[in-house]
Amino acid sequence: MVLVSPRNPLNIGAVARAMANFGFARLKVVAPFAPHWQEARSAVGAEALLGAAAETATLAEALAGCTLVAGTGTLAFRKPEQRVVRLPDLGALVEREMERGGRVGLVFGPEKHGLTRDDLSYCHLLVEIPTDARQPSMNLGQAVAVCLYELAARGLVSTKESFGTDSGGRPAAAAERLELLAGVVERTMVAADYSPKAMQEANRHDLRLLLRRLGPTERDLRRILGLFRRILWRLER
Amino acid sequence: MVLVSPRNPLNIGAVARAMANFGFARLKVVAPFAPHWQEARSAVGAEALLGAAAETATLAEALAGCTLVAGTGTLAFRKPEQRVVRLPDLGALVEREMERGGRVGLVFGPEKHGLTRDDLSYCHLLVEIPTDARQPSMNLGQAVAVCLYELAARGLVSTKESFGTDSGGRPAAAAERLELLAGVVERTMVAADYSPKAMQEANRHDLRLLLRRLGPTERDLRRILGLFRRILWRLER
Repeated sequence: MVLVSPRNPLNIGAVARAMANFGFARLKVVAPFAPHWQEARSAVGAEALLGAAAETATLAEALAGCTLVAGTGTLAFRKPEQRVVRLPDLGALVEREMERGGRVGLVFGPEKHGLTRDDLSYCHLLVEIPTDARQPSMNLGQAVAVCLYELAARGLVSTKESFGTDSGGRPAAAAERLELLAGVVERTMVAADYSPKAMQEANRHDLRLLLRRLGPTERDLRRILGLFRRILWRLER
Repeated sequence: MVLVSPRNPLNIGAVARAMANFGFARLKVVAPFAPHWQEARSAVGAEALLGAAAETATLAEALAGCTLVAGTGTLAFRKPEQRVVRLPDLGALVEREMERGGRVGLVFGPEKHGLTRDDLSYCHLLVEIPTDARQPSMNLGQAVAVCLYELAARGLVSTKESFGTDSGGRPAAAAERLELLAGVVERTMVAADYSPKAMQEANRHDLRLLLRRLGPTERDLRRILGLFRRILWRLER
């Protein structure tokens, strides 16, 4: 579970409580608002979980090791750029990813506006909680509770670790590996004059989404990376 | 939905918000703590729903008209006297009851201790939210959200909107397009000295497999093709 820039200590506490209720233990918090984060950490009842929570400066760091990243949010105000999965269907995807040895990250945005377009570009899919169109935006603690309930009801909790090696598919490449590749491809784009300066930000964004849509395995990734490194070396020579 | 003696105005607000999120409108409140109830009623965002909420002195009055009453609570501290239904199985029962013209009441107790044994005696069944044995007791607002999500996900609400946004459903690129891309990538490999002559056959094979494994859409493919054409042009210049 990854929380991006949570503000309200009550909400952070509610998130921790829902995690404990449904047997989830690993929490990462990205760029929290410091005073509120400290306050939440000292709140009664959630000490252990919040005390063990890792704090990172960026979402990319928080996602290290994740092979499937699911962002959350309402679709009311945006046209998503990646696959949308209704919450009741998320469990099956998570199950499959865990069976093939992958690790899943579930990302929640700040209370006010949710995940930004940039945050979402790190996500393979967007989870949609089926809410009423007239009141689609959920309270953070409640959204977390609903999502974790859905996953816990399928028995998809951390306690389920060792899986058979004969389960077919390889896991997708981890988040930080996709970032590495994205960086090399971006440098190649620049070296090949493919990406004029004004377009670099947009291209970076699109590239992140593209790599997650393609979902290369670690082996695929090494191969593509090798090719681009070679190209880059030739272009920069 | 029936709330018995809620105390915390924030919780009452959270209950109202979850109801609005999942399209539930009818709330009854039994013997609320007056000042907090007034405070919650005037909270931003939940006015309509809380304003229309009926207030009764007893649970029995609040349940008038209900043909099936489901109480909620943790089983950790009590031996239930009625049938226990796990939340994921509640939907089917509610559905059946509504199909035969019945009306269902879902009852939540006060934050501190939940429904009393006496309260529960008005219930046909006790709903168990499957929580972790080490932390079974849920926050009221979150418990309500989880229960209403479960019912709403089955379409057991009056307002059934269409949720589908088929943004994920683009077709994959056609075989001949993958071949075109493979050809350009292969030429780039050669131009970058990535692919020595002895390896070209094997690389071509692996590249075909790789592209099919990645399964780009036509739009993805155009993008990747554009990049490689640019690189190739630079390398061959």
